[in-house]
Formats: sequence, structure tokens, C-alpha cells
Amino acid sequence: MTVYQATVSAPVNIAVIKYWGKRDTKLILPTNSSLSVTLDQDHLRSTTTSRADESFERDILWLNGKEDPIKEGGRLATCIGEMKKLRKQYEDANPNEPKISSYRVHIASNNNFPTAAGLASSASGFAALVSSLAALYKLPSSPSELSLIARQGSGSACRSLFGGFVAWEMGSATSGTDSLAVEVAPREHWPEMQALVCVVSDKKKGTSSTSGMQRTVETSTLLQHRIREVVPKRMEQMIRAIKDKDFTTFAEVTMRDSNSFHAVALDTDPPIFYMNDVSRAIIATIVEYNRASVAAGGPVKAAYTFDAGPNAVIYALEKDMAEIIRLVCYFFPQGVSFEDPMGVFPSGVQSGVPEGFDVNVVKVAETGSVSRLIHTRVGGGPRVLDDSKETLLAQDGSLKV
Amino acid sequence: MTVYQATVSAPVNIAVIKYWGKRDTKLILPTNSSLSVTLDQDHLRSTTTSRADESFERDILWLNGKEDPIKEGGRLATCIGEMKKLRKQYEDANPNEPKISSYRVHIASNNNFPTAAGLASSASGFAALVSSLAALYKLPSSPSELSLIARQGSGSACRSLFGGFVAWEMGSATSGTDSLAVEVAPREHWPEMQALVCVVSDKKKGTSSTSGMQRTVETSTLLQHRIREVVPKRMEQMIRAIKDKDFTTFAEVTMRDSNSFHAVALDTDPPIFYMNDVSRAIIATIVEYNRASVAAGGPVKAAYTFDAGPNAVIYALEKDMAEIIRLVCYFFPQGVSFEDPMGVFPSGVQSGVPEGFDVNVVKVAETGSVSRLIHTRVGGGPRVLDDSKETLLAQDGSLKV
Repeated sequence: MTVYQATVSAPVNIAVIKYWGKRDTKLILPTNSSLSVTLDQDHLRSTTTSRADESFERDILWLNGKEDPIKEGGRLATCIGEMKKLRKQYEDANPNEPKISSYRVHIASNNNFPTAAGLASSASGFAALVSSLAALYKLPSSPSELSLIARQGSGSACRSLFGGFVAWEMGSATSGTDSLAVEVAPREHWPEMQALVCVVSDKKKGTSSTSGMQRTVETSTLLQHRIREVVPKRMEQMIRAIKDKDFTTFAEVTMRDSNSFHAVALDTDPPIFYMNDVSRAIIATIVEYNRASVAAGGPVKAAYTFDAGPNAVIYALEKDMAEIIRLVCYFFPQGVSFEDPMGVFPSGVQSGVPEGFDVNVVKVAETGSVSRLIHTRVGGGPRVLDDSKETLLAQDGSLKV
Repeated sequence: MTVYQATVSAPVNIAVIKYWGKRDTKLILPTNSSLSVTLDQDHLRSTTTSRADESFERDILWLNGKEDPIKEGGRLATCIGEMKKLRKQYEDANPNEPKISSYRVHIASNNNFPTAAGLASSASGFAALVSSLAALYKLPSSPSELSLIARQGSGSACRSLFGGFVAWEMGSATSGTDSLAVEVAPREHWPEMQALVCVVSDKKKGTSSTSGMQRTVETSTLLQHRIREVVPKRMEQMIRAIKDKDFTTFAEVTMRDSNSFHAVALDTDPPIFYMNDVSRAIIATIVEYNRASVAAGGPVKAAYTFDAGPNAVIYALEKDMAEIIRLVCYFFPQGVSFEDPMGVFPSGVQSGVPEGFDVNVVKVAETGSVSRLIHTRVGGGPRVLDDSKETLLAQDGSLKV
């Protein structure tokens, strides 16, 4: 008996031009285009195994070892349904292929990073879901075509269908068929691009991005200006900066757009705050770091960006990352030793401040204010894994434990 | 020998439509109109004594007991010089009046609130300076005329020339002659309007409003939209709300405009943050307080607003203020007992939360996060005091100690 199964991993992406606001909440069509850097799956990934079998009685999804109900008409059901439709089309065009589109599916998905880290796992999760079904169904679809479906699971998931530098073009069709991800440049174009994720703990429960962005659409008086005037220019600037490998412009646009996004969140009624005092201190650290570099005739060397939470992601080039990690460890003392997946500090991090940096600008935070640092880099798109080794499902199609 | 001297006190004002951005930094002409409530001088005031004397060798100003240098071409020199010009015109028109416009002046000014409280003392200070010179010079100038001069000392000072509810009309003349304060309504129109100043300590040194607002003008992509589209509509709404004594609209516009101002500060490069985690918690408290009231069929009862610092000012009507003080004392335990200038709590504050308030929305802060509460109300304009009793200068014209 043939087993129809595939296992795929998909990456996290962190936007440098932010997505905030939907013009269609069902199809998840955004009010502006956005652009992200895909992070390396060696460090952060979602892995998903999908299997189709005639004997399965219903579609089931296990997320991190726990069943996640597939609600009728919900986002999971939409993605799975759309993928089955594509398989059906493929079967109709290729009559010799097995008719598995009518089978129920069992899907198991894991993230290799703790949910508590506050990293958006929905992007990598839905990208892995769609990619694993595409592999199972042997679909000829391009990543952009698959991004149309991932988008309906979680908007920013569409950008995780590509590696490197990825734009989500907002599109204009009411059907959403032109609201998809495209590659701006592959990871190989600018492999020196790295990222340091600073996990910031927060006592306050945040506003979910889904409800937050709709409140912004409904109440902010500044959002429309951001959408119409600010973002389109920044998209052009950012695409040019990436193509030219112009880190200064990349960094300046990244920081400004992060602030612009948090500004419209604050302009919401009631206001939405995602950054806290530790986030503010990270910004102050990076601002002073760049100021000191530029004052000494050097370049802008780092860019902060914040999603819908207090965590910072610092983008920098490989050459500067060791200095930045030492700096962050100086002002945000780590309770645990720095995991060093890329082997930057063979004998451990010696925290410190670069020459010319005014230490009075930032106060040393309490140990653990930044609870974890994740050093990674620009990475590739979804990977089809060796299912015989990486499967998350047991032989009988139940969750492997 | 005649002593030419006058002592005047002037009030603090807290804007409900914020001033942020200058179109002329020398004349202090704003990029948008603004509107404020004048607070009661019984609680918060600057007091200034001015004396003109032929024997004085130079203009001197003492601020809170310390000489404050009057720099040539600076804001103090401008205000004093403009007032002397008005006196000269008055003398030319009234030849029998003594020719004191050519005399040097000694000026002593005090605030009755600590600078450490982080309240903008420049508004009350420049209003008291200009008013005391106007009294000394016996000028027939109207408050609006004097506001033109106070404006050149500190923009928001122009609004402290009136009591009650005051608009600063931005004007359009390049000379600044139409950028002045006007009364929207006197305090007697809506005497129930009260304010609770929550003094929030902050470890981080803030950005001065003078430099901050210029950076916003230079770098924010959202400010122009705020100036052109958002504020003009809000000015109309707010004037109407005050004339109608419509607290719901007053509160909603106040909170939205505070957030809009902080949003454009955040949209500045590098970003400017004035609110901290305690400020955020105060906002969350007021949002939940209003939500609970509205959910129970009641009205919006409180409005927060934040100037260029972490302190909150909560506007509310007299009938609700006791409940609000109890609520604030519950979530922000006071290290010192509440000064109760209006005798709301004859036997001390019993902190507590009103019915329907979800206590899980806000965490109780560390004692002293809000270091002081000042309960006050809408107040009147500058007052000419009995100089024989209130003078800040000694008989010989030196600082009284």
C-alpha cells in the first residue's frame, strides 16, 4: 500500500516594511505592500508532515504535539481546502495520477523555537503547511502561486514561501489573485545580512495583531497617509537598497518603517503599544551605536525593527555582528549563556562597548530583561526534507510521540 | 521716591489639542493651532515680581532663587524687550506718564511646584513674566495682545494668559501678529472640569520639547498629515464640545490627540518616546475605566493626556474625580499620603476599583511609580497680587531671601 506523505520545513520572516491593516479580512488582502528578510531555517523553522490516506475519517492537525481544531470556514480549513482543489486540478490534467485529492489529511507541525519567545510562528507555520501539502500533492505550483494560499492562513506567511528578500505585493484585485509574494533577491545576493533576535519579556498581555490592525484601520487618522504616501515610496527605496546592497539605506528605511508602524498602532483608539521600556532601551542603544560610528566617519551598522510585540530584531552585516552582540550583552546582561550557533565567540562573549559609544545614553538593564538572543542570518525558502528521517507522523498516520 | 513694581501670578495650562512643531523657530510660530485648559492657580502657579528702576545697571532675572542669565537675542531678552517697547508706545501716547521704559528691570520668579515634578513651568513662567511687566507698565494691552509676546518666550505660554478654555490660533502671517491666544470659554462656563496630575518618575532623560519638535518637523512622514488634516478637524470638534459641555467628545478628542502627538514623536528619526511603561499602565487603567462605565450604560468619565514627558494629566468632571483618585491609588500605590487640597477625602483615600472594572487588565504598580498626585480644576487667568504682601524682591530691588 502506497503512503502519500511529505515533510517540509519553512522559515520565519521578519518584515522591514511592515504589514499592518487588511482591506479584506476574509481573503487577507493587505492595505499596503510589505517586504521582509527570510531567516535561516538552520536556526528558526516550522516543520510539517502531511499525509493523505483513504482510511482517514477527518482532517486532523497537530500543532506542537497537540490537536488544533480545524474550524469550518476558518483559516486552516481554507488553506487545506485550497490545496486539495489544486491537487484536484492536477489530477484532472494528469489522469494517471492517484486520486488522493478526495482523501482526508493528517498534518503534524512543530516549531523549533518556543512559543514563549514571542516570535510570529504563524508565518513559518502556514508556509510549512502549504509547502508540505504541495510536496505531498506533487503540485507544479510556483512559490508565488502557493503564497496566494498561505496568505489566506496568515498574511505574512506568504512571504515565507521564498528565501532571501521577499516582497508581498498588495495587489488590487478584489479576488486577491494578485496579492502574492515575489522574490526581490535570493539569499546568495547578500549573504552577509544577519539578524539578532532579542527576546524581550513583557508583563502586559499584548493585543493580537489580527484585532489590533483592524482597530487601526477603523480608528487611526494617520494610517491612510502611511498606506498611500509613505509605504509606496519606502518599498521602492528598500528594493533599490537591497539590489544595491546599500546597508545604510536598508537600515534607515527599516528603522523608520518600524517606528511608523508603531506610530499608527499608538494612533489607534484605544492606543496599541507593543514596545515597552526594554524595547525603548534597545532602540536607544542602536541609535547611539550608529551615531558613534557615523561620528567617527563610519557607516550606519545596525537596524532595529519590532513586530507586534516587545522583541527586537537587529539586522546587521556579518562583519559587525560580533561587536553588536557584545554591545547588547553589555546593556542587557544575559541570565543564560549566549547560544552561538555560528561560532562567533569560541571562548564565550566578552560584553563590551565600542570606542566612541557614550555609555551614559543607556542604562544597564536588569539581568534577563532580554531573556534570550538568537543569532541568525538571511536564509532560503521552504525545504522538502527526507520524510523517512524527519516525519512527524507515526506509521499508522497518527501523531508520532 | 516712587517704586515701580508689580507682582503677578500666572497659571499652568495643559493642552488637549497638542502643539508640536514650529514653522518659525525664532518667532515661535506653530505648525498647527492648539487648545488647552488653564489649571487653578490655587494649586499650580508661577509668581513673578518685576521692578523698573533708574538705578539698576542691567536687567536681571532670578528663577526660583537663582539668577537665570538673560542672553542677548534669547527668549527672555526678546520678551523683556517687547514689553519695554509697548511701554514706550504707551509713554509716547501719554506724555504725563513716567518714562520708565528706559529703566533696567529686576525680575524674580518662583514656581510653587517642584521642577522635579516635570510639569511644564515655562508656560506659567513666561505668562507671569509678561503679565507682571504689563502690570508694572500699566499697559492697556488685552490678554491676546500680551499672548503675542509670551508666545515668543515659550509657545504654550501664550495660552496661560487666559483662564478657562483657551485656543492658540496658529495664524498665517509671517510676522506672527495673528498667532495668539483667544478665550474659548471662561472657567465659569464649565467649572466642573477638574484635573488629576499623575507625576511619573522616569529613569531616562527625555528629549527637550524644543529640539524634539524640530526633529519631528524635519523627519516625520506623518506630521504633515496631522497638521493639515487631523488637527483642524479636532479644533472644531473640541471648541464645539467645550461650548456644549459635552464631556464624552471632549474626552475622546483629548485622548486621541494625545496619542496622535506621541505617534508623530515616535515617527521621528531617531524616534522620541515620552511615555514609559507606567504611562502605558495609566492609559490602560483609564481605557478600562471608561469601558466599564460605557458597558454599564454610563458615560465616558475620564480622559488622559500626556505632554513631552511621562506624567499623565487626567481630566474628569467633579462628580467622578473621587472615584478616579481611588482607582489611581489602587493601581499606583502612593508612597506619600494624597494631598487633598479640595477636601474630597476628609478621612483619607480608600483606594478601590469601581463596579464592573476588570482588575486583570492592569497590574498593580510598584509603590511610588506614580510619585505624586495633584488634584486641581479649571482656573482663571493671571492675577495681579498685592505687591506689598507678595513681592519677591527686597526693598532695595535685590532678590528677597
